[in-house]
Amino acid sequence: MLGRHTLNKTLKLINRRYASQSMLSSTTDEKTGIATVALNKPPVNSLNLEFLNEFKTQIHQLQNDKARGMILTSSLQNVFCAGLDITEFYKPDLSRLAEFWTTVQETWLALYLTPFPTAAVINGHSPAGGCLLALSCDYRIMVGPKYTIGLNETKLGIVAPKWFQDSIVAVIGQRNAELSLIAGKMYSTEEALKIGLIDESVPDASRALEQGIKFLNNFQKISPWAFKMTKDISRQPTVQWLLENKQKDLDFVLQFMQSPNVQKGLGLYLQSLKK
Amino acid sequence: MLGRHTLNKTLKLINRRYASQSMLSSTTDEKTGIATVALNKPPVNSLNLEFLNEFKTQIHQLQNDKARGMILTSSLQNVFCAGLDITEFYKPDLSRLAEFWTTVQETWLALYLTPFPTAAVINGHSPAGGCLLALSCDYRIMVGPKYTIGLNETKLGIVAPKWFQDSIVAVIGQRNAELSLIAGKMYSTEEALKIGLIDESVPDASRALEQGIKFLNNFQKISPWAFKMTKDISRQPTVQWLLENKQKDLDFVLQFMQSPNVQKGLGLYLQSLKK
Amino acid sequence: MLGRHTLNKTLKLINRRYASQSMLSSTTDEKTGIATVALNKPPVNSLNLEFLNEFKTQIHQLQNDKARGMILTSSLQNVFCAGLDITEFYKPDLSRLAEFWTTVQETWLALYLTPFPTAAVINGHSPAGGCLLALSCDYRIMVGPKYTIGLNETKLGIVAPKWFQDSIVAVIGQRNAELSLIAGKMYSTEEALKIGLIDESVPDASRALEQGIKFLNNFQKISPWAFKMTKDISRQPTVQWLLENKQKDLDFVLQFMQSPNVQKGLGLYLQSLKK
Repeated sequence: MLGRHTLNKTLKLINRRYASQSMLSSTTDEKTGIATVALNKPPVNSLNLEFLNEFKTQIHQLQNDKARGMILTSSLQNVFCAGLDITEFYKPDLSRLAEFWTTVQETWLALYLTPFPTAAVINGHSPAGGCLLALSCDYRIMVGPKYTIGLNETKLGIVAPKWFQDSIVAVIGQRNAELSLIAGKMYSTEEALKIGLIDESVPDASRALEQGIKFLNNFQKISPWAFKMTKDISRQPTVQWLLENKQKDLDFVLQFMQSPNVQKGLGLYLQSLKK
Repeated sequence: MLGRHTLNKTLKLINRRYASQSMLSSTTDEKTGIATVALNKPPVNSLNLEFLNEFKTQIHQLQNDKARGMILTSSLQNVFCAGLDITEFYKPDLSRLAEFWTTVQETWLALYLTPFPTAAVINGHSPAGGCLLALSCDYRIMVGPKYTIGLNETKLGIVAPKWFQDSIVAVIGQRNAELSLIAGKMYSTEEALKIGLIDESVPDASRALEQGIKFLNNFQKISPWAFKMTKDISRQPTVQWLLENKQKDLDFVLQFMQSPNVQKGLGLYLQSLKK
Repeated sequence: MLGRHTLNKTLKLINRRYASQSMLSSTTDEKTGIATVALNKPPVNSLNLEFLNEFKTQIHQLQNDKARGMILTSSLQNVFCAGLDITEFYKPDLSRLAEFWTTVQETWLALYLTPFPTAAVINGHSPAGGCLLALSCDYRIMVGPKYTIGLNETKLGIVAPKWFQDSIVAVIGQRNAELSLIAGKMYSTEEALKIGLIDESVPDASRALEQGIKFLNNFQKISPWAFKMTKDISRQPTVQWLLENKQKDLDFVLQFMQSPNVQKGLGLYLQSLKK
């Protein structure tokens, strides 16, 4: 039988190893209270269950620490975030899939309604769920001109759920959102800037970071409490559907992902990625 | 007593005559599955009960035939579609008026939610209900610069119903929609392009058709099923009101059109058209 | 004991003095039916209970007089309207505060849904509630380039209520509204024009007035009845929340304004104004 002492030592070891293998790289500027959170899960920051859980925990931690702002960016070359990990959907274990999707929902709600301002520094490609992360921040600065961004789900033979759609409608309006969604369009930085999918396009990553900090510094003199209430009222129409339909949304995904057509499409897509 | 053989011959004759008198001219490209449907009811493609029924049937037929796209255009010179036939409203038989309005509702729902992509090639003026047809497609290309488009109902002393208004809000946003609706404004192609009421302005009809086909070809590689689900989610907020208020909407029109003021206004308008 | 005769004389005297001290200056063009209403409460047209009541009464009067349009402007130099009178919120008498807020709600509903078209001629700064007045008109012409406009509530440590937010979303869309609200941003005329917060920027006040009249004259040939029904349908989504939540909105304000943090912030703000 394992003694308590040995158990504790083992747990600490696990925690340390876990910490050293963290998929996030976070630092906070003590003076301004602004945190920089970099997604760091090679090769493409695909969002699986464990990564989402770590990210969600990090947001809650910053909230508890009364952070005054957050930069969301990537540690990787060329990719901001490739989106939800497709392997979570392919030939899924249904109980893990349910946990995964619930975590997707909760992470989005946590990010979308942070009590501190957030800026996405999009320093690489940002399709599907990666685009959703960027859309959920309060401001978007993208490194141009070569990266692309968009909710391209239809191109993969899948469907952006209602609340993904509402998120992009809130940023670029109904008309541009619909055009982008039905065609699964990926936008160049120039196109994204034109339709308002991003707020700024800058030529390099360090400049993007500077602009993100500059945006967040606007809020240093604003009462965090007035900020949070104002943001909640503003974003309430966008989150309302999910808050009222979490189970319905989950049931839809569980059913959808068991469809032979969807599985076939995902299989072909995963094969194409391997090449 | 008419023999079965004679009856069949008569029916065929009626069908043939009906076909030859068809108010629509439709062709489908067998290779791409893209249909071109041209409104062909001189002099101005005004939408009366019979015309709407034929158009609605055509949409359902394309749906059954698993069409992969539809161009909606006009066979006439200078007019895309003049809108709802005002004579259906003037001194109406109430039972026909009810059938007419129900058909307007159903035709709009069929066009607005087609399972295949649609492009309006607006090769002539497009006021009121003609503008609504264009707004209901997924894309709008207009032949410039001399034609005009808009929901100009207030100029006729009538009112664009809630779902007409929601259709234009979904395309040009609340602010521009309100300005256009209260003033009953008709837009030049240049103005329409600027506010997003159309997506492209091109100098001639054949170029407009090419651009329409080009838009529809974008969807050849997209799963029709993912397209349909994505479009339904995107357009659901716009159709929701009508789906929940069909009878209320009909009752409003029946009552509205019996108002002496409205009848007087329509009479003056019809007289002005005769001159 | 004061006799009835004496009392009546005193009341008449008060009424006369009140009338001569009217905080509004109104004239109506008999030919066009267009009224010009100028806010005239030095030094900054701050909206207290009495001023709002006078303004609300004036709108109802124009409605009874079947006015065909209204210009809303300011008689003061450099200020269109400074917004709600902060002294109504600071160390408030709760019964007066409740009456004040109910009057704010009713004045907004009256202005937002006028049966005649309205144009704001913004001839001075227009923060917070002043911006709301402008947003509630059908058209906005601003005298550039030195004045500023915006819903800057968060800068004062307070929160723009749901229906203030809905008013600006209806004009500039969700994305720009959110950015403006969370940062409490004041816009230059040039910036305001770019995001659609105003419809025109002109170099001087007399030109602004001309453009306002020109906008209102567009409606001379439109049936007032068709105008009113069309505007009501268009603006119904924006007023719906308040119509369904008047008491909830009032309760929120009453509770909010009793918070020590808010009172402290307002106190500091009022002190800063005195300097």
